[in-house]
Amino acid sequence: MGIEEVTGRIAQDLEHLKQFTATPGEGCTRLPFTKEAREAVDFLRKTMEEAGLEVHEDAAGNVFGTMKGENPDLPCVMMGSHYDSVVNGGNYDGIAGVVCAIEVARLLKEKGIVPKRNFVVVGFCDEEGMRFGTGYFGSGAMLGNRDPEYCKKFTDKNGVSIYEAMKEYNLDPEKVQDAKWPDGSIGYFLEAHIEQGPVLDAENIEIGLVDCIVGIQRYMITVNGRSDHAGTTPMDMRMDAVDAATKVISKIADWAREKADGSVSTVGYINTIPGGMNIVAEKCEFTVDIRSKNNDNINDIANRIRAALDREVKAMGGSYDIQNKLTITPVNLSMDMLREMEESCKEHGYSYKYLPSGAGHDSLEIGQVIPTAMLFVPSKDGRSHCPVEFTKYSDFAKASVIMAELAEKLITSC
Amino acid sequence: MGIEEVTGRIAQDLEHLKQFTATPGEGCTRLPFTKEAREAVDFLRKTMEEAGLEVHEDAAGNVFGTMKGENPDLPCVMMGSHYDSVVNGGNYDGIAGVVCAIEVARLLKEKGIVPKRNFVVVGFCDEEGMRFGTGYFGSGAMLGNRDPEYCKKFTDKNGVSIYEAMKEYNLDPEKVQDAKWPDGSIGYFLEAHIEQGPVLDAENIEIGLVDCIVGIQRYMITVNGRSDHAGTTPMDMRMDAVDAATKVISKIADWAREKADGSVSTVGYINTIPGGMNIVAEKCEFTVDIRSKNNDNINDIANRIRAALDREVKAMGGSYDIQNKLTITPVNLSMDMLREMEESCKEHGYSYKYLPSGAGHDSLEIGQVIPTAMLFVPSKDGRSHCPVEFTKYSDFAKASVIMAELAEKLITSC
Repeated sequence: MGIEEVTGRIAQDLEHLKQFTATPGEGCTRLPFTKEAREAVDFLRKTMEEAGLEVHEDAAGNVFGTMKGENPDLPCVMMGSHYDSVVNGGNYDGIAGVVCAIEVARLLKEKGIVPKRNFVVVGFCDEEGMRFGTGYFGSGAMLGNRDPEYCKKFTDKNGVSIYEAMKEYNLDPEKVQDAKWPDGSIGYFLEAHIEQGPVLDAENIEIGLVDCIVGIQRYMITVNGRSDHAGTTPMDMRMDAVDAATKVISKIADWAREKADGSVSTVGYINTIPGGMNIVAEKCEFTVDIRSKNNDNINDIANRIRAALDREVKAMGGSYDIQNKLTITPVNLSMDMLREMEESCKEHGYSYKYLPSGAGHDSLEIGQVIPTAMLFVPSKDGRSHCPVEFTKYSDFAKASVIMAELAEKLITSC
Repeated sequence: MGIEEVTGRIAQDLEHLKQFTATPGEGCTRLPFTKEAREAVDFLRKTMEEAGLEVHEDAAGNVFGTMKGENPDLPCVMMGSHYDSVVNGGNYDGIAGVVCAIEVARLLKEKGIVPKRNFVVVGFCDEEGMRFGTGYFGSGAMLGNRDPEYCKKFTDKNGVSIYEAMKEYNLDPEKVQDAKWPDGSIGYFLEAHIEQGPVLDAENIEIGLVDCIVGIQRYMITVNGRSDHAGTTPMDMRMDAVDAATKVISKIADWAREKADGSVSTVGYINTIPGGMNIVAEKCEFTVDIRSKNNDNINDIANRIRAALDREVKAMGGSYDIQNKLTITPVNLSMDMLREMEESCKEHGYSYKYLPSGAGHDSLEIGQVIPTAMLFVPSKDGRSHCPVEFTKYSDFAKASVIMAELAEKLITSC
């Protein structure tokens, strides 16, 4: 099977899936438990069946296609990604990983592989968390980490809970725990995904071997000063929340740069209250997002932020609140599997690079309990979560070929 | 006339005027050309008439009460302030200065002064500019600086122009230029006003002698970077608008502090676009408000901001836009009149202090062309433009007594 044919099949599947969007002409909007999700899953079912897989959907909205092995009781090899998207997102984030997994199944079939253990293709539901402000719903449910209470807790912007949305989608949220796979039943997890960052594209590299998914800490910080007239209040009688806050914010990116190991930190949101141009700000709110493959670096930057806040609000005479919104520790992926894929890249002459994933993925949830490997393919200009997201179909084909070779080794071993 | 009686009359007038608000129980909301404005003007008319003044309203919504002098052709002495308020403002900003002027007229009458020239009490319309995003409408019209085109240009949040609002208020906007007083007809302008700042209250001083109204420059600045994924974009491949902008913002207050001469600078508003906590900001917008009695200091701070922006956007690789929203040069008030009032303060044993006004006032518009003097009375905790704005009635009485003595000297001279 030549790379051109693999490319063509992947192109055909992805071109077809592009139409399942709530925002035609404005990128892919495929939120979980919607008409577009149903249409995409129906297409995936059909495509998996055509590839000779046994298809079933679970109680959490995931769709699986199984190539039976001689001994189905052995831990399976699972490969896939998610089929949902963000609002006005791209046509590749997530869904391309499901299509690559189907292509791997096709390649294994065509090669006449007789698997000892099951090879399972998966399309996960709601990795993005866009609709309900959550994330990793389908992969989390597969691992037994979601229950009916969770489904009742989170609602979309119209007040519809996951629980209600599942019912509208003909799923019984009371049975969401049925989606859990027995412990030990999944032996390996493989995921192909677009990089969503600029590194591979900028360095003109075809395959990213993802050795780690970075840890994340997120904070919402509010610096509390006092609202005063910007004209009549002398500088030494003010409690200017913007002055104190920006003396901290202006250093946060530098602290990540100093690490020089790929650690990143970002203040993406600042809000001033009351926000009048002639009023000294009473409050300055801002977010911090810190990521690193080294958890000590994340903690160090968070500690420096706290120390700087202590210093600046003391100088101002105010106070601050800091709220931890998210803490995820870094996850190391399987070096054994990555080394296998590195060898395949060398044999095929594909350029490759080890790199961490700065974004979360289903592999982040799964990689904590199951040996997991990820491949990245280049994102043009690093753009994603937007309509111009672009990856060459031939890059997906190359990733599929590499992952098929790894899958073959895994499913033919005892 | 004892200070207690003066205090009582001022208290009575201000207590009565409190009721003319669109937001009872939530401070004073008296926007121009509204029912509340009409009610306040009607009460001022009645009060002026009771004080023996000849009342008329002009084509711009101002109300005047005249104590005739022996030679009405001599340039008059005018005293007053504005009767409008901000939304949910206090009960003293502006209107107390009109009440003090009426009280000065009463004191002059009671003392049996025979004026050589007219003493004119004024209540100006729309100093705050709250409704139409403008300001100094009535005083500007009196000086001939407003015309029908201006009235058509500015609209309130419901799309009603000054022009239309005037018509609804039974004024003919085509005749707004009739409000202009002949050049040379106003000899002196006096204004009593609450400080709206914390200085007098903090230092327990009764009278502020305002020697200068500070100049102002206002800017809207946008730093332009590039939106990127906060997890997947390495620090050295970002154009982080927040990082660049806050490296400038964090210094702006310090540059004013360094001047140590009362210069102030404020960033009251920051906005981040798109503003997601996991997205590197593409744009960071912020406002700057710089005020000083020394125009060179204003220019110096504005120049430092531009230089810092040049440096930071060069380091980032982005760009910035800077838009001048307002430029007012400082206005020096009449030291001759202030020295007279300083002597009066000494005679009465009132504590006083020379200080600049950090806020704009009708005197800012008028002081550019007519000898002008202002007195400040203390604002408790420096609060104003809010319902808790507070000044002791006895402080208004003391200011009235001081200004009456100055007015007596001015109207009895040839």
